[in-house]
Amino acid sequence: MAEVLSARGNANGVATSQGLPNIPWQDRPAGSKAVVWRHRENPVIPRAPQPGVQGVYNSAVTPFGDGFAGVFRLEKTDRFPRLHVGWSEDGLDWQLEPEPVVFSNWKDDPSHYAYDPRVTAIDGEYIVQWCGGHNGPTISLARTKDFRTFERLENAFLPFNRNGVLFPRKINGAYYMFSRPSDNGHTPFGDIYLSESPNLIHWGRHRLVMRKGGDHVGQWWQRTKIGAGPVPIETPEGWLMIYHGVIDTCNGFVYSMGAALLDLDEPWRVLYRTNQHVLTPEADYEVSGHVPNVVFPVTALCDQPTGRLAIYYGAADTCTALAYANLSELVEFTKANSAVF
Amino acid sequence: MAEVLSARGNANGVATSQGLPNIPWQDRPAGSKAVVWRHRENPVIPRAPQPGVQGVYNSAVTPFGDGFAGVFRLEKTDRFPRLHVGWSEDGLDWQLEPEPVVFSNWKDDPSHYAYDPRVTAIDGEYIVQWCGGHNGPTISLARTKDFRTFERLENAFLPFNRNGVLFPRKINGAYYMFSRPSDNGHTPFGDIYLSESPNLIHWGRHRLVMRKGGDHVGQWWQRTKIGAGPVPIETPEGWLMIYHGVIDTCNGFVYSMGAALLDLDEPWRVLYRTNQHVLTPEADYEVSGHVPNVVFPVTALCDQPTGRLAIYYGAADTCTALAYANLSELVEFTKANSAVF
Amino acid sequence: MAEVLSARGNANGVATSQGLPNIPWQDRPAGSKAVVWRHRENPVIPRAPQPGVQGVYNSAVTPFGDGFAGVFRLEKTDRFPRLHVGWSEDGLDWQLEPEPVVFSNWKDDPSHYAYDPRVTAIDGEYIVQWCGGHNGPTISLARTKDFRTFERLENAFLPFNRNGVLFPRKINGAYYMFSRPSDNGHTPFGDIYLSESPNLIHWGRHRLVMRKGGDHVGQWWQRTKIGAGPVPIETPEGWLMIYHGVIDTCNGFVYSMGAALLDLDEPWRVLYRTNQHVLTPEADYEVSGHVPNVVFPVTALCDQPTGRLAIYYGAADTCTALAYANLSELVEFTKANSAVF
Amino acid sequence: MAEVLSARGNANGVATSQGLPNIPWQDRPAGSKAVVWRHRENPVIPRAPQPGVQGVYNSAVTPFGDGFAGVFRLEKTDRFPRLHVGWSEDGLDWQLEPEPVVFSNWKDDPSHYAYDPRVTAIDGEYIVQWCGGHNGPTISLARTKDFRTFERLENAFLPFNRNGVLFPRKINGAYYMFSRPSDNGHTPFGDIYLSESPNLIHWGRHRLVMRKGGDHVGQWWQRTKIGAGPVPIETPEGWLMIYHGVIDTCNGFVYSMGAALLDLDEPWRVLYRTNQHVLTPEADYEVSGHVPNVVFPVTALCDQPTGRLAIYYGAADTCTALAYANLSELVEFTKANSAVF
Amino acid sequence: MAEVLSARGNANGVATSQGLPNIPWQDRPAGSKAVVWRHRENPVIPRAPQPGVQGVYNSAVTPFGDGFAGVFRLEKTDRFPRLHVGWSEDGLDWQLEPEPVVFSNWKDDPSHYAYDPRVTAIDGEYIVQWCGGHNGPTISLARTKDFRTFERLENAFLPFNRNGVLFPRKINGAYYMFSRPSDNGHTPFGDIYLSESPNLIHWGRHRLVMRKGGDHVGQWWQRTKIGAGPVPIETPEGWLMIYHGVIDTCNGFVYSMGAALLDLDEPWRVLYRTNQHVLTPEADYEVSGHVPNVVFPVTALCDQPTGRLAIYYGAADTCTALAYANLSELVEFTKANSAVF
Amino acid sequence: MAEVLSARGNANGVATSQGLPNIPWQDRPAGSKAVVWRHRENPVIPRAPQPGVQGVYNSAVTPFGDGFAGVFRLEKTDRFPRLHVGWSEDGLDWQLEPEPVVFSNWKDDPSHYAYDPRVTAIDGEYIVQWCGGHNGPTISLARTKDFRTFERLENAFLPFNRNGVLFPRKINGAYYMFSRPSDNGHTPFGDIYLSESPNLIHWGRHRLVMRKGGDHVGQWWQRTKIGAGPVPIETPEGWLMIYHGVIDTCNGFVYSMGAALLDLDEPWRVLYRTNQHVLTPEADYEVSGHVPNVVFPVTALCDQPTGRLAIYYGAADTCTALAYANLSELVEFTKANSAVF
Repeated sequence: MAEVLSARGNANGVATSQGLPNIPWQDRPAGSKAVVWRHRENPVIPRAPQPGVQGVYNSAVTPFGDGFAGVFRLEKTDRFPRLHVGWSEDGLDWQLEPEPVVFSNWKDDPSHYAYDPRVTAIDGEYIVQWCGGHNGPTISLARTKDFRTFERLENAFLPFNRNGVLFPRKINGAYYMFSRPSDNGHTPFGDIYLSESPNLIHWGRHRLVMRKGGDHVGQWWQRTKIGAGPVPIETPEGWLMIYHGVIDTCNGFVYSMGAALLDLDEPWRVLYRTNQHVLTPEADYEVSGHVPNVVFPVTALCDQPTGRLAIYYGAADTCTALAYANLSELVEFTKANSAVF
Repeated sequence: MAEVLSARGNANGVATSQGLPNIPWQDRPAGSKAVVWRHRENPVIPRAPQPGVQGVYNSAVTPFGDGFAGVFRLEKTDRFPRLHVGWSEDGLDWQLEPEPVVFSNWKDDPSHYAYDPRVTAIDGEYIVQWCGGHNGPTISLARTKDFRTFERLENAFLPFNRNGVLFPRKINGAYYMFSRPSDNGHTPFGDIYLSESPNLIHWGRHRLVMRKGGDHVGQWWQRTKIGAGPVPIETPEGWLMIYHGVIDTCNGFVYSMGAALLDLDEPWRVLYRTNQHVLTPEADYEVSGHVPNVVFPVTALCDQPTGRLAIYYGAADTCTALAYANLSELVEFTKANSAVF
Repeated sequence: MAEVLSARGNANGVATSQGLPNIPWQDRPAGSKAVVWRHRENPVIPRAPQPGVQGVYNSAVTPFGDGFAGVFRLEKTDRFPRLHVGWSEDGLDWQLEPEPVVFSNWKDDPSHYAYDPRVTAIDGEYIVQWCGGHNGPTISLARTKDFRTFERLENAFLPFNRNGVLFPRKINGAYYMFSRPSDNGHTPFGDIYLSESPNLIHWGRHRLVMRKGGDHVGQWWQRTKIGAGPVPIETPEGWLMIYHGVIDTCNGFVYSMGAALLDLDEPWRVLYRTNQHVLTPEADYEVSGHVPNVVFPVTALCDQPTGRLAIYYGAADTCTALAYANLSELVEFTKANSAVF
Repeated sequence: MAEVLSARGNANGVATSQGLPNIPWQDRPAGSKAVVWRHRENPVIPRAPQPGVQGVYNSAVTPFGDGFAGVFRLEKTDRFPRLHVGWSEDGLDWQLEPEPVVFSNWKDDPSHYAYDPRVTAIDGEYIVQWCGGHNGPTISLARTKDFRTFERLENAFLPFNRNGVLFPRKINGAYYMFSRPSDNGHTPFGDIYLSESPNLIHWGRHRLVMRKGGDHVGQWWQRTKIGAGPVPIETPEGWLMIYHGVIDTCNGFVYSMGAALLDLDEPWRVLYRTNQHVLTPEADYEVSGHVPNVVFPVTALCDQPTGRLAIYYGAADTCTALAYANLSELVEFTKANSAVF
Repeated sequence: MAEVLSARGNANGVATSQGLPNIPWQDRPAGSKAVVWRHRENPVIPRAPQPGVQGVYNSAVTPFGDGFAGVFRLEKTDRFPRLHVGWSEDGLDWQLEPEPVVFSNWKDDPSHYAYDPRVTAIDGEYIVQWCGGHNGPTISLARTKDFRTFERLENAFLPFNRNGVLFPRKINGAYYMFSRPSDNGHTPFGDIYLSESPNLIHWGRHRLVMRKGGDHVGQWWQRTKIGAGPVPIETPEGWLMIYHGVIDTCNGFVYSMGAALLDLDEPWRVLYRTNQHVLTPEADYEVSGHVPNVVFPVTALCDQPTGRLAIYYGAADTCTALAYANLSELVEFTKANSAVF
Repeated sequence: MAEVLSARGNANGVATSQGLPNIPWQDRPAGSKAVVWRHRENPVIPRAPQPGVQGVYNSAVTPFGDGFAGVFRLEKTDRFPRLHVGWSEDGLDWQLEPEPVVFSNWKDDPSHYAYDPRVTAIDGEYIVQWCGGHNGPTISLARTKDFRTFERLENAFLPFNRNGVLFPRKINGAYYMFSRPSDNGHTPFGDIYLSESPNLIHWGRHRLVMRKGGDHVGQWWQRTKIGAGPVPIETPEGWLMIYHGVIDTCNGFVYSMGAALLDLDEPWRVLYRTNQHVLTPEADYEVSGHVPNVVFPVTALCDQPTGRLAIYYGAADTCTALAYANLSELVEFTKANSAVF
């Protein structure tokens, strides 16, 4: 058995030397050898959880106070995606704000969609990243300290972009963010890039981090496009990046979950990368829904002392589900089943 | 609570001052606040209801005699869509004619497909409208008095068109029909138009009634295309049009149900229009099937004295389902949750 | 030699028992056997004929007074197509109105494009038909008596449609118009239909007249789409319809000119149809231009006593050119080289 | 009742005058009139049957020794399709080799995908056919006698091709193989061809056997493309070819199963062809999965004395399922419900 | 007549209080009223100007020493676009370096294409901008002082981008650059954005400057996409931006030239914008060539004392052409014929 | 100067130890350094060379008797491509048969198109190869001895294929033929394959010979697709294959000419391949026409004693042109400017 691996003081970016003892958790089912396993009571936020709400998914969760806060992609029955704050004591039972996030310094344009948020705790505050609609999709940013007041920052990139994910600390004095340059439709291609910023406003030194797979590397589960998922987790073995990989079948895209380890100081260097998915749509709530066959990881909480990982993911663009892993096992698995290309 | 709203003497176009007491009906489930709710024993016509019949869906039902008659899209195992007559005493249990509709004045060409019928009772007879294949899809019409003998009329429009829906009475001496200009494939766009006719043969004074939604109006559930559904229902507040709205996801179209109120005398003027769907694919028989994620409303029966609405809709292009609403509630809901654009 | 064939009293729809002696004309070049030949000084309206005017093409010309009037597709340097009236004494030298046509009964929307006009003289007035932009292209109509005051009529059809061409007289009491149902882009398909109207407002009894060609009939010059051209000319042999046929090559569409004869009383019946083009892009001004390889016939003037035909056509969507033919020769050619399919 | 029809000594190509008494079998469910019916415990190989294996489907099974052997499309969690050998005593419970097939005479390129195998017993050995990746998909071949040592033969055809199926005996001294010329993507078209070979290396005398359906023949279930399925079965009535037909809906392809009878000596001549599918996605494991709505027949075992047919088919590109039929009934059904076009 | 308008001391970014007396120049042809007119001996660099060179076009020229230097898109007979330096005394006769630009700090990858350069003189050096191939096209940058030694800077943006154009001076302490977010093909859409940088490395505060035209504004010449052209020229009336606008016809794109005036301090604000093109393909070398119908402006030299403008543009992606204008006339024209949208 | 290189006794496949003294020829223009240069009186067969004939291009020419015979793609004014025989004494002035080729053993189907022929002299007869329409394009073959009687052979391949070119002698006892697997449209991809046959009926041992270029090899002129041109010419340095390479621009494909040397005994091995085109559209008749920008080489005649090469090529799919080269120079050029990938 792999021993418990100590993450360097971060639980989704929050320095928690004391760990995250209230992390949601269930042991691996008896008999299972899976490196990632599902929460038994999935989905944690079901389809149509409230009157007038069609779905809540692609959920960015972070420890906050004694419990958890989060920013959620919530779609009411207009199906227009907006960001809503949610609160939870245990990370499982969520109270969602009925009104979407507003920004103190920005006159809201109700026609600007916002989806697929991530939340990074850094420098004593929380930076929210999401895909915003500004003459095409691109990466929008905002800051908050309390999940009640939000301040809009500049969009990080020109259109067309999706899946922006900010690192939980500066590296050599600079901010780093993943993104996936896209087109203005349902993008049938895409690779993961890393960009650097001195100030969260200006971004440069763009680096191609990882390409999609394909025939030449025997990687069909990620042959169409890939995109960063949760805020990366710092480990002695490198930054653990959980990401999604997509295959196009004759009947649509299938989104699965994979993992990679990146160099701690030069995070554009891939050390290891799973040559297989670690979770793929198999449960009913993943296989069927408004967008069938989607497992889309967004958040990974970590309890250092135990190495417990709780991974929130959107299922079928319809509901929010939870999966578990052991940090050191996942790192070892990634190293042992790696193909870097 | 909204009070019962009196429809102006029509039950799917039949003047029924005495109401439609045998309308299918189930009360809203306890605890539900939905404005539209499903029949508990859905689907009313299941997948493969008879040997050799693959599916019956998109069903045009009308009161007839002491019970109900209807024209159904029925696909045998050649999957070629044809119109079949059906009979029912209670609107739930249907006897379907084994042979498709033939026309007394038209030599049937077995290669001409016919799908998505509507039936309008007007001027003492029934006008059937459907999407017929004549060098491309367009709106075909026929008349019947007894659902046994049918006479083909001229096609209303040039190709390419779908979702023709005739009003249940003349307005200022003219017939009116909705339609949705289309292309010759799976049409990724489409708005609802209204056309006028003095004689059910020649059509003109075409008016654009409603456009699809999109980012600019925060309406994603209907951002790709829209199409008229049941025969509109006359109310003091205007013509109630139940329609379908479509969003394209990366894994296909999702069809939901919405509603609008149109001016009684100038029915090309939209007074109110739901800024959200009122029913979207959530049940298994809607989410899974040969065309997943389809809720396609075709008929709305109305019992005036009670305001009960029974809405027949195709589910996943696989089976026929039923939903209920209260007319005055639905009208109030449409007025209270409206965005006209 | 074919003898002169007497057209039944119409010169582009004008009853002219006295003929059209001032029709533009040049004899067939010595040595040529072509059934249609070019005006030697083509183009008659060159590229950029005036400062601020980019091009004038697809021109609908008619005898008027002692000379000729016409409605032209004129594009200024915004390249937005609008209709402009033009005047000429000899049909060759044209004075174009600097401002586009306005309508007495219609508040002009400057964002509504208008292109590819035809003019039909009928019932003592002139009906202009064109492709107008109304939430997609469709056939617009207007009437004038003097080419100074124009009254907008209803659009004839729902979108999406192009190449509407009105017959020069009623047949059995009804108006008839060709059109080509299209899509909302550069339509890679299309056949010619005929529709009937009692009043120029309502249209019905739509009939498919002619399909495009293809491999199965050995007709590649018209394999992609076809569309009606000038107002049809009545002859004892039937209505002479000059039309365009299109082939798609790997480097774009090529538009050529063909001809057909339709039954006089049932003009949806094709009697003969050229199994080859009669004019195809070969001259520099046809082969090169903003839309290379376009010969697009719009008007055919006819002088009865001599059988002279003067055919105006757009060349490369850049300029206006002229070609000549002899009516009886063209009719004979169509009969002798026919494939109806 | 149709009487038992004697197949001419072949059980998936194995001359078995003694029959195949251990063929998997379940009688038709009471009350059912279906000509093809499902195994009650489907799928026989479920989704994710082993740790690290995502799915096993499109399975080529053959009698071997006292039991059965087979070549399977197996996808591990890299989702890259490879061929794996499997063993079974009863045709239901399968032991799959953990490593993919290697070839004694061919240095394996791990980037060459291999999927949708068929196995034909002929001339005392087994010829495996599959869709291999060689600068595009085409038909690869190999031979084995024991399913332990495999020798690669030449690819039969140039790219792009799929669904190669070899006949179980020579006809007039020549080998025959079906195939479906394709494109390099998810091919939205396709017909079945037959090619001849003197030596399994060089192929020629290509014949178009069957075209896809469409409007003109009222066959929508097979309107998009068709492809051969199991090795054809010789009967006195002709070669029984079970095949798949595909319809494209607005939400993807639907694959169903049909049957045809071909001339025994000139197998490019179609004698009968079902004018309807005999199995279409209706069970959960067919309707939902990574590629929803797929029934893809690959193998048909036959026990001569009883006429029992056991048809293995891939379901939803996710698992392996089994269906049954009676040979003489299926032949009679094909003759009685036939449309050849 | 408009009086000579004094540009604020820049000739393509070079502070030249003494003017640019050796600017290429020809007076407007007698009788012409064009605001932009062609060099009579166009093209200045013809098709295939040297053995082994297929074409030189899209040329970035700047005053240098007593004459001119430039960076050219040069394609040898491999047709692979690379940057070559050129020298000229008079701006008309060019000596081109036979080898492409290499970078002192960057190991050249011969597979990285480079095209459509611009050169901006700023802070005493020259910044070259071009479209480089780095897993898709994006904006690359380099610096030089002598056009002999070049240093690569970071790419400015993530893919996919084209038409990056750097301003000739800092504004309020920051660099500004136009660009046009694109896709990875022949991009059928595109608007002009402005981005800010403190250091030519990190870019942010992205602003949408100008959208493409379309029906709603009656601007077809620029309805498909637009892109910045030469380095903007500072005038008292604002920054003069010459740009290209594109229309898609059924036979391809047509590129024309337009102009806009932007606020001097907030250059993302459009003050005026020509509602028409000022140059469109009409000459043979613009209409015919490897990419027919392209006028693509890249450089605008300016002589302050006289207001003379010399505009270099690529013609038909085949050769380099030159056009002239008078600065104050062009500014006046832009103001007088403006539509901002 | 390169010395004259002796071809091994073949002039387009005809063993001509005595050479081909009447080969068309013009010396390289003074001052030119081109390795391939144009015939000064091009095109040798102009656009519309006879009444009723639209164009003759893509012409397969061979020495015959005292002069030359050939098979031509000829399109009459139906623009349907058919094969016509032509005769010439000098290879410049051609008499074309008015009727297309018929086959003694094959009932002609007038709907089967035939284009882009090649003629190979082998074993005392002439084998014609062309792209025929048989439910999609593929390679058809016929044999003749006198160009008056033709016998159809089997099609070589399944659809979809184009540009089949047969070698002029057997190699190690087998026939060899190039082809380019395609799709059923204007194929935006394509590589050259080689197939082997014992009997001109069955084909196998398919080998990928050459891939198209692209960014990774800096070869844009051939980045989209490539296809074999004339019958390869045997030289001591290998088989000289002249071929076409295609780039897709935003306004269409551009076809250029390149060359390669293949191993004499294993002709699927590429020894050298020009890293640039040797002829690209530059002349008016190449740049403008019904398919602009096409240089499509089809035949290369060779006179051994002098090394003179006369290359017939189609220009703009409109006319037939001729170019010249010196065999040893072209071989040397290919070796000296080679990139094999």
